[in-house]
Amino acid sequence: MVQAPSFARSTSFAPARPPAGAPPVRINLYSDTQTRPTPAMKDAMMRAEMGDEQHGDDPTVHLLCDRMAALMGKEAAMFLPSGTMCNVIAILTHCQKGDEVLAHETSHILHSEGGTHAALTGVQILPLKGERGLFTADDVRAAIRPRTRYAPPQKLLEVEQTANIGGGVVWPLEQLKAVTAVAREQGWNTHMDGARLMNACVAAGIAPAEMVADFDSVWLDFTKGLGAPLGAVLCGSAEFIGQAWRWKQRLGGSMRQAGMVAAGCIHSLDHHVERLAEDHANAKALARGLRQIEGVVVEEPDTNLVFFDIKGTGVSVEELQKRLMAQGIMVSGLGGRVRACTHLDVTAAMIPEAVSAIREALAA
Amino acid sequence: MVQAPSFARSTSFAPARPPAGAPPVRINLYSDTQTRPTPAMKDAMMRAEMGDEQHGDDPTVHLLCDRMAALMGKEAAMFLPSGTMCNVIAILTHCQKGDEVLAHETSHILHSEGGTHAALTGVQILPLKGERGLFTADDVRAAIRPRTRYAPPQKLLEVEQTANIGGGVVWPLEQLKAVTAVAREQGWNTHMDGARLMNACVAAGIAPAEMVADFDSVWLDFTKGLGAPLGAVLCGSAEFIGQAWRWKQRLGGSMRQAGMVAAGCIHSLDHHVERLAEDHANAKALARGLRQIEGVVVEEPDTNLVFFDIKGTGVSVEELQKRLMAQGIMVSGLGGRVRACTHLDVTAAMIPEAVSAIREALAA
Amino acid sequence: MVQAPSFARSTSFAPARPPAGAPPVRINLYSDTQTRPTPAMKDAMMRAEMGDEQHGDDPTVHLLCDRMAALMGKEAAMFLPSGTMCNVIAILTHCQKGDEVLAHETSHILHSEGGTHAALTGVQILPLKGERGLFTADDVRAAIRPRTRYAPPQKLLEVEQTANIGGGVVWPLEQLKAVTAVAREQGWNTHMDGARLMNACVAAGIAPAEMVADFDSVWLDFTKGLGAPLGAVLCGSAEFIGQAWRWKQRLGGSMRQAGMVAAGCIHSLDHHVERLAEDHANAKALARGLRQIEGVVVEEPDTNLVFFDIKGTGVSVEELQKRLMAQGIMVSGLGGRVRACTHLDVTAAMIPEAVSAIREALAA
Amino acid sequence: MVQAPSFARSTSFAPARPPAGAPPVRINLYSDTQTRPTPAMKDAMMRAEMGDEQHGDDPTVHLLCDRMAALMGKEAAMFLPSGTMCNVIAILTHCQKGDEVLAHETSHILHSEGGTHAALTGVQILPLKGERGLFTADDVRAAIRPRTRYAPPQKLLEVEQTANIGGGVVWPLEQLKAVTAVAREQGWNTHMDGARLMNACVAAGIAPAEMVADFDSVWLDFTKGLGAPLGAVLCGSAEFIGQAWRWKQRLGGSMRQAGMVAAGCIHSLDHHVERLAEDHANAKALARGLRQIEGVVVEEPDTNLVFFDIKGTGVSVEELQKRLMAQGIMVSGLGGRVRACTHLDVTAAMIPEAVSAIREALAA
Repeated sequence: MVQAPSFARSTSFAPARPPAGAPPVRINLYSDTQTRPTPAMKDAMMRAEMGDEQHGDDPTVHLLCDRMAALMGKEAAMFLPSGTMCNVIAILTHCQKGDEVLAHETSHILHSEGGTHAALTGVQILPLKGERGLFTADDVRAAIRPRTRYAPPQKLLEVEQTANIGGGVVWPLEQLKAVTAVAREQGWNTHMDGARLMNACVAAGIAPAEMVADFDSVWLDFTKGLGAPLGAVLCGSAEFIGQAWRWKQRLGGSMRQAGMVAAGCIHSLDHHVERLAEDHANAKALARGLRQIEGVVVEEPDTNLVFFDIKGTGVSVEELQKRLMAQGIMVSGLGGRVRACTHLDVTAAMIPEAVSAIREALAA
Repeated sequence: MVQAPSFARSTSFAPARPPAGAPPVRINLYSDTQTRPTPAMKDAMMRAEMGDEQHGDDPTVHLLCDRMAALMGKEAAMFLPSGTMCNVIAILTHCQKGDEVLAHETSHILHSEGGTHAALTGVQILPLKGERGLFTADDVRAAIRPRTRYAPPQKLLEVEQTANIGGGVVWPLEQLKAVTAVAREQGWNTHMDGARLMNACVAAGIAPAEMVADFDSVWLDFTKGLGAPLGAVLCGSAEFIGQAWRWKQRLGGSMRQAGMVAAGCIHSLDHHVERLAEDHANAKALARGLRQIEGVVVEEPDTNLVFFDIKGTGVSVEELQKRLMAQGIMVSGLGGRVRACTHLDVTAAMIPEAVSAIREALAA
Repeated sequence: MVQAPSFARSTSFAPARPPAGAPPVRINLYSDTQTRPTPAMKDAMMRAEMGDEQHGDDPTVHLLCDRMAALMGKEAAMFLPSGTMCNVIAILTHCQKGDEVLAHETSHILHSEGGTHAALTGVQILPLKGERGLFTADDVRAAIRPRTRYAPPQKLLEVEQTANIGGGVVWPLEQLKAVTAVAREQGWNTHMDGARLMNACVAAGIAPAEMVADFDSVWLDFTKGLGAPLGAVLCGSAEFIGQAWRWKQRLGGSMRQAGMVAAGCIHSLDHHVERLAEDHANAKALARGLRQIEGVVVEEPDTNLVFFDIKGTGVSVEELQKRLMAQGIMVSGLGGRVRACTHLDVTAAMIPEAVSAIREALAA
Repeated sequence: MVQAPSFARSTSFAPARPPAGAPPVRINLYSDTQTRPTPAMKDAMMRAEMGDEQHGDDPTVHLLCDRMAALMGKEAAMFLPSGTMCNVIAILTHCQKGDEVLAHETSHILHSEGGTHAALTGVQILPLKGERGLFTADDVRAAIRPRTRYAPPQKLLEVEQTANIGGGVVWPLEQLKAVTAVAREQGWNTHMDGARLMNACVAAGIAPAEMVADFDSVWLDFTKGLGAPLGAVLCGSAEFIGQAWRWKQRLGGSMRQAGMVAAGCIHSLDHHVERLAEDHANAKALARGLRQIEGVVVEEPDTNLVFFDIKGTGVSVEELQKRLMAQGIMVSGLGGRVRACTHLDVTAAMIPEAVSAIREALAA
């Protein structure tokens, strides 16, 4: 009767550690999630007042949540260890099991959260089509289901601002208003995955509260362009956040002396928002440079993500990554294209160097 | 057709913030989760090397995981934001939906995780009876179900070391061996909720690796007696941890520059383990003092938790808490009893003061 | 990369077919679920008008549902293929995932539905203790949890009438009123598993509508004492049944020309309710006879289930079953005891014969 | 504290009963699910031997399962109350929660099972595109995900034979072989929703066992073209069916004296398979007739489903349904088109009458 523990599938999903002797990364265009906290941010973190976050006793977490609620124009906010947990909790709070969420067919919740919405939140995601990660009010209207027992009940419209796989594209405010108007008509809730929301606000010159006014919930990730080491904040009505706390507890997202980490997020709100414009300028410069390379097709960047197609060069994405890595330069591959991301640790001076390196790597 | 967002139940589950003008807490016997990081720990955190944890690039997280795997005698380890998430992920990895977990009827997974094992992990928990949070091999044997389609498949035996609601009681090594032997016979996996495992090891004088040798998975919380602000580490075989990473991603437990936080945990392993003996001595002193108060029945503490019954005094637990709070002293209520917890922020000198305050509060 | 399909656990849960050459069963005390339809019932089934049940077009199903709603004093009713599905759908309709259901520790939902409430309905079941399958209002009151995010939300009180493992015991009406009063105070819903409800009503001389007046939902199984081949009916408010239809569809419980089967149920309401008194008299006669056997301890039957303990005889339950089977007599084993069940296919004349056979089998 | 039971959403999902005074349906082209059992079938049902199905004692159910396993060339089979339950159980048995199933974007599991795969089976369904409900090996290959913790694990390829919303289209055997070959390469299991599989086999002149040879599981619905009142049979390996029984029990799909119903299915295998060719001929005749109507675009039927587009006539689908209903003729609307279905209760003589009625209704 004795049997060894079995975990059903033999592949490991633990991330590989960097190989010994790997060259140091000089120019990291892989992701804005890889920024290190600045000395000033670390200093702010050290000076943070702390308490037991899950007992309501951490003053720095309260300060961050109050700031975020005000910034987003919502009643309340909740601190969480990651953006994925914001999506998971928002969907668990908005929906009951068996409900359907409408989202773009390239959305993070469909492709990058490991099937958590089937495994844990219990919703079906209806993929909407549309250019560059965006859909229209007509697309939403065409996806309305009859209210019968054969169709899953539709409950939530989800938008990703900016649209990552779409190309870091900014949803125009009018288009947000148009798609959420259909949701309201139908009695659905609306949720914004705002992983890179501040990039959109800075690029469009629109205040966050205005940008998210038509959404019942929205979250911001502090570990992307904002440069904090850890944390995301989910915002919504007091009732929504009050219910969401139950899911935070159930998922193990309640923390203890989280004030130190929250202080890094506050620091980023004070010092790292306006400067996203530099990342966007760097992205545009990078796009210009890449367009000069034969065989490369570059999508015009709205924000800090530059997607380019290298099929015309005969070099594969993996091969390009490998060649660049040998020179200490990292880019990522996403949806058959190369993605280069600008952020706090990428300076303007690095852009021409990156372009040259990519030109050479594609020519090699 | 338009309807307001609805979140089904009107109660808020957000923790209350401390009222303005509340007296400062002088002696915090509420919980060992409320310790603040020491200056030395904060210093270590500032100096931490960091990287992108979920991409396998954070050297400090790797160091912590390697230390923990060695300490527990397991192949691998995984850093997580909370102990509750360790339980959730361990159960998701060990079990398929509809499986049954055997655990003590006072266990944390049954009463303090918000019903997450019904909501998310999809297991039924079979409550075992037994004195002070412990059960015997015979209790386990009596709970074995027939392997038919009418009975849920039994898959995991769970033990909480120390047993919190049991009174901070240490499971004797022989008893651990006896109950896990039944599990092995049956082909079940075994999991230890080691929230306060180091208290047990220090109190019993047994090395962690020996204490947990018969368990397939075990986790340690760094935010309790060890005094770190954030973090828990789950240990097991390389295959178990490899599979558990999928659930870490799905729950939103993957982090970014987590090395700063992990450095606090490493510091606690170096500096805050041996000293748990002081907490235990303080707990014994507290128990001795409380026994002198008429009408108070005190359970002999094994570790850092002192449970006492005040029904004989005619004062309710809530009333005692309120009276003590007015003097800046916090205790908690658990299962109809008072719980006083000693830890890093509770000195030996505070004990007689706490006893006096409790005596007066009960006499008032 | 190719791998064979794997279904994770190697045991088959398909029921064994009867071995070739097995002796015919002469006296079936195994279960009232094993009755065959009478010729009159089959005749009624043949004459049934039929339509597409899941489209609302089956007149015989409508007739059965209307009869049942009236009998139970509820607004609406729904036809289902089994009693287990009634429990599953009722819990899915009353509860959201992560809610807690309070039920007796011997209840069918805990032990005989394969862990479906962890696997599919997503609720935690809190086992209440109490003699012979019954609990009191004080037991319920003692199980009330605080409304915090740490405790699962309590939502439903479930009662099994009659209590099968309790001994086929009838819940007294006053006790039903007392326990449901606590539920109402707490804002919980109430559900009755009425697998053998008509046995309780006939034994107590209380009309079904009165017996279930304090329950939000109740179901009756037609395949037990009532002798129909297939079917159970779940009753509740129009709103409850309206929502329950969504779950019926999702579970695959919607049927087509179900009128033929429903006609058997209607026939049983007309012809097989009053006669349950005969089964109860036979059970009492059986209990009297068994009490004469040395070493046998018999629980006094309230209805059609006779439980007896044979530990005093030195013969195991399995051995007794095997010896009786060799003579064409079937009994079941449940919770370490023997269960003998009287029903439509057990005549008064079979009782002394069964007693003799059991006496001999225990003496052998 | 007292609150009324609440079932969250106010709409009822119970099917509407036919209005009093509704004209009798003379020509039912609505669905092949609405056939009534013939006198010969009812006679066979009456003569069926019966036993307790869920205890393995029903000889007629065994006979049906053995016949079906042989017909499909599989080791084992299981009787269930509906086709939807076959899909639910197959997916629960093949997959663990969080796995992904690849299926056509028009498939029944995505649109017509009420979101059960989000609510209960816990899988994500990846919609594949392709003409008329079919996809190619290249489509499958393009949908292969990397095996990382960010992507849901892909586990099952599902095909619907015939493709209902596709137009009752028959998957060519070569195309089945091509798509399942990709699945095998990837180590996925394969499942066929064979609701109308016998229509495909008769139309293509291919034996069922050959048609489904590359599928790990397959089911057939007896309530569609085969004309039985109730029942579907799921087939697969002995191990698959052995595991599937656990889910049958959990869903409440285990039955009692199901032999009577199973006898109807056996009768349909003996008498109603060959005659599906008549339904197909009638469908072709109907298509020819409809093509003569101006503004109507008719899809060429492969089997018994005739889809036609009436946008060119200016009459809406709902209006056409209403006008036809007034004359006792029923058709259904599906995906913006009209669907007319031929079956056992539709004679060749009814076809010209239906065409005339539709012509008039569109002209009105």
